[in-house]
Amino acid sequence: MSMDKLKEAYGEIADLVKAAAVLGWDQQTYMPPRGFAARGQQLATLSGIIHERMTADSMGRLIAEAKAGKLSEDDRHFLHELEFQRDRSAKLPAALVKALALQESRSFDAWQRAKAAKNFSIFAPELKEMVRLLREKAACFGYEGTPWDALAQDYERGTSAELVRAFFEPLRVATVDLLKRIEAAKQVDASFLEQKWDVNIQREFAMRVLRDLGYDMARGRVDLAPHPFCTSFGPGDVRITTRFSAENLFDGLSSVIHEMGHALYDMGFREEDHRTPLAEAPSLGIHESQSRFWEIRIAQSRPFWQHFLPILKQYFPGRLDGVDAEQFYRAVNVVEPGFIRVESDEVSYNLHIIIRFELEVKILSGELEVDDIPEAWNRAYKENLGLTVPNDAVGCLQDVHWAYGSFGYFPSYTFGNIFSALLVDKMEKDLPHLWSDVADGRVAAALAWLHRHIHQVGARRAPMDLIREATGQGPSAESLIRHLRAKYGDLYGLTS
Amino acid sequence: MSMDKLKEAYGEIADLVKAAAVLGWDQQTYMPPRGFAARGQQLATLSGIIHERMTADSMGRLIAEAKAGKLSEDDRHFLHELEFQRDRSAKLPAALVKALALQESRSFDAWQRAKAAKNFSIFAPELKEMVRLLREKAACFGYEGTPWDALAQDYERGTSAELVRAFFEPLRVATVDLLKRIEAAKQVDASFLEQKWDVNIQREFAMRVLRDLGYDMARGRVDLAPHPFCTSFGPGDVRITTRFSAENLFDGLSSVIHEMGHALYDMGFREEDHRTPLAEAPSLGIHESQSRFWEIRIAQSRPFWQHFLPILKQYFPGRLDGVDAEQFYRAVNVVEPGFIRVESDEVSYNLHIIIRFELEVKILSGELEVDDIPEAWNRAYKENLGLTVPNDAVGCLQDVHWAYGSFGYFPSYTFGNIFSALLVDKMEKDLPHLWSDVADGRVAAALAWLHRHIHQVGARRAPMDLIREATGQGPSAESLIRHLRAKYGDLYGLTS
Repeated sequence: MSMDKLKEAYGEIADLVKAAAVLGWDQQTYMPPRGFAARGQQLATLSGIIHERMTADSMGRLIAEAKAGKLSEDDRHFLHELEFQRDRSAKLPAALVKALALQESRSFDAWQRAKAAKNFSIFAPELKEMVRLLREKAACFGYEGTPWDALAQDYERGTSAELVRAFFEPLRVATVDLLKRIEAAKQVDASFLEQKWDVNIQREFAMRVLRDLGYDMARGRVDLAPHPFCTSFGPGDVRITTRFSAENLFDGLSSVIHEMGHALYDMGFREEDHRTPLAEAPSLGIHESQSRFWEIRIAQSRPFWQHFLPILKQYFPGRLDGVDAEQFYRAVNVVEPGFIRVESDEVSYNLHIIIRFELEVKILSGELEVDDIPEAWNRAYKENLGLTVPNDAVGCLQDVHWAYGSFGYFPSYTFGNIFSALLVDKMEKDLPHLWSDVADGRVAAALAWLHRHIHQVGARRAPMDLIREATGQGPSAESLIRHLRAKYGDLYGLTS
Repeated sequence: MSMDKLKEAYGEIADLVKAAAVLGWDQQTYMPPRGFAARGQQLATLSGIIHERMTADSMGRLIAEAKAGKLSEDDRHFLHELEFQRDRSAKLPAALVKALALQESRSFDAWQRAKAAKNFSIFAPELKEMVRLLREKAACFGYEGTPWDALAQDYERGTSAELVRAFFEPLRVATVDLLKRIEAAKQVDASFLEQKWDVNIQREFAMRVLRDLGYDMARGRVDLAPHPFCTSFGPGDVRITTRFSAENLFDGLSSVIHEMGHALYDMGFREEDHRTPLAEAPSLGIHESQSRFWEIRIAQSRPFWQHFLPILKQYFPGRLDGVDAEQFYRAVNVVEPGFIRVESDEVSYNLHIIIRFELEVKILSGELEVDDIPEAWNRAYKENLGLTVPNDAVGCLQDVHWAYGSFGYFPSYTFGNIFSALLVDKMEKDLPHLWSDVADGRVAAALAWLHRHIHQVGARRAPMDLIREATGQGPSAESLIRHLRAKYGDLYGLTS
């Protein structure tokens, strides 16, 4: 009875979170330019009410009453998640929560203008204010190491800058070594991709692939937005955004499949977990393991293109004559370090994350001033990837995360790669026909496996425990490193 | 100081109302079919919080404190509007407000399915529940005459079924007489409109017209939806929905211009009235006077087509050769009673309203059972318009209003015609070049006139007072009747 009351109280908070998500989706897809001021106020008011309700004394009483009653195992998981969220919310003054929400809209708007103008200085004043508010936020939470640690808990619970470095260092070393050996090896021919590809046809093909992979259009939709994302408004409404470029046949498709991986996760929570804190991933790294699984491990695999290349050729008749699946597979896996994270190859990808991670730790600690970000960014790209960044739009303005105050978020991308490698290892053991199925265009067994071992668990396990239970392995980057060496050793004929 | 606190408290309520409007817009434009259950919950939660905050004791204290202080004239208007809304909200139990919001989503979904299946019985169970809740709502408000009166206050303050009949009866008599004389007169040739008109080109032309008439695309947008509407999320974000039909060149354009009339009103409130109850029309009838002004009085006028027909011909090259502005003007004003309100001609339009008005008074009083609506509807169309309704989709399912529980809303459409006739009378006196300007494609002076006399006043006047002050005439249907007789007497060569 008191558990029911608590669930309804939380359910209303969940409704408000979803309502805010709808407003956020609209802001990035269809909102007219002059709408942003009022939208910022609306989102700030919603955040304020969510915070107020989460931290209300009445919620504390409901929790205490519920704990005094008989609890099922799921009730205990519910309470554990709720109390984590509530304790964290309680540490933030309502005024700061509102100020952050308001600043998000302002920074987002400035970021859009700055990116269009390729000029970081348009964004800098708003980012400074955001960083100031984030330092305040970190101070409210408290931390032992660095302010970054305090903020990162929202994305990867239990992490710290030190721990992240421990995970990332072996990967960084292996990646730098692998990139050197690839650079010295023979080149892969991808010149047949250098054509203009009609974006509307790209979009039609991407929709076809989505449907074939199991994304249910009655429960979702795909819209265009400057930054691709996935957002969930309930079990029957999980949306994707993306964008297509005529210069790049694979970029748009790849981002659609990535976001679909997130969407299949959100669509896969138990129906009865809807409006509870259990219909959540334990961490963003876990969420990212799903998007990267579909984007990289499936859609950049040899069997995937054995099935889909003939279909792609139907969408672009005469444009890929004489290209076979093996050539196409090699072309979409060309390793060529570039400026843009979301367009980067599987090997160099993690270096993008490591650069951002190190920068944001320094920005928050005050070691790096906001005005000096472009210079530090460009230096890091020179040092780590050997590239000279031509302008801020393809440099430090490329991602939306900082505009939204999402400092601590980036490492989740590489955790996603690490976790998905572990999942594939186990899936290959459990599903001996995995890759022959993919070559026949059948992925239902893989989806069902993820559904059972990841999606349906929801937030019932901590991130590392979930991976351990699903794969039987403790988490480390070793599986990912093995995969990268094997796949690219084969592709580039490297001697191991 | 206490006035400032009150304004912030109301501002947050206004933010929530706008947030709910965004969710409603999305539900009708882009939401995937399976999203409706969660959306209903989200809207119900928002309604509940809006109601809770509007009726909170703390709001009562803020009002009392504000009243004890020094008040400007605008403060007094603010308090007057707020107290009207609050008194009305206070009469409704929170549970009923929530139940109504939840039922709106359910009824809307059933209405969509019923309309697609042309079958009222799919909608009937949900409508019955809606009517049951509305009777409860009417009982909470209390009424002297009939339950309809209690509900109509939300749309046309101060009205009653009796009063509506007093306004409508002379109009009904004059309309029936005019229709008879038109039927006996020579026919207007509109056969050149009976072609297929590409809906994408129609849309491009409509966007061109919108821009030319003053709708600012940086502050709005146009999307497709089953039922055209206008919705405002703030002064910089006022959106329109519409739909186009290949069979009808004028229908889509007409509905776009209608909704634009609403949008120009919402864009025209004073910037400083945003987030206050003053950024509202005094009534829906006043709002409708703006949409009907642009849709009928401007876009169905002779000078309008003198300017826009040559432009339309550029969009449909070769399709209207040999048609001149006079012929086109006559064709878009053909009087031909039909089933569909939103497609009906200017003369018979008001009969559609009178039929719905009489039906909903009876439905709410219990004189007419929900299951008997199709029969009663079809009988009324036979008696008043001489038409046999072929199916429910073009009969009693054509409009969304009842699905949303908006009983009492329809008369506002005819009040809009009545008020806009009065406004045009005065505008013609104040702006001697009005019609020659329209013939040159210039409507800025007309828009400025409405801006000054209607838009910027916001909710500072009661509906009838606003019209009296703007036009110097007491409200009655006489001006509209005079206009209809003159325009259609001329068009059909009637002897007066």
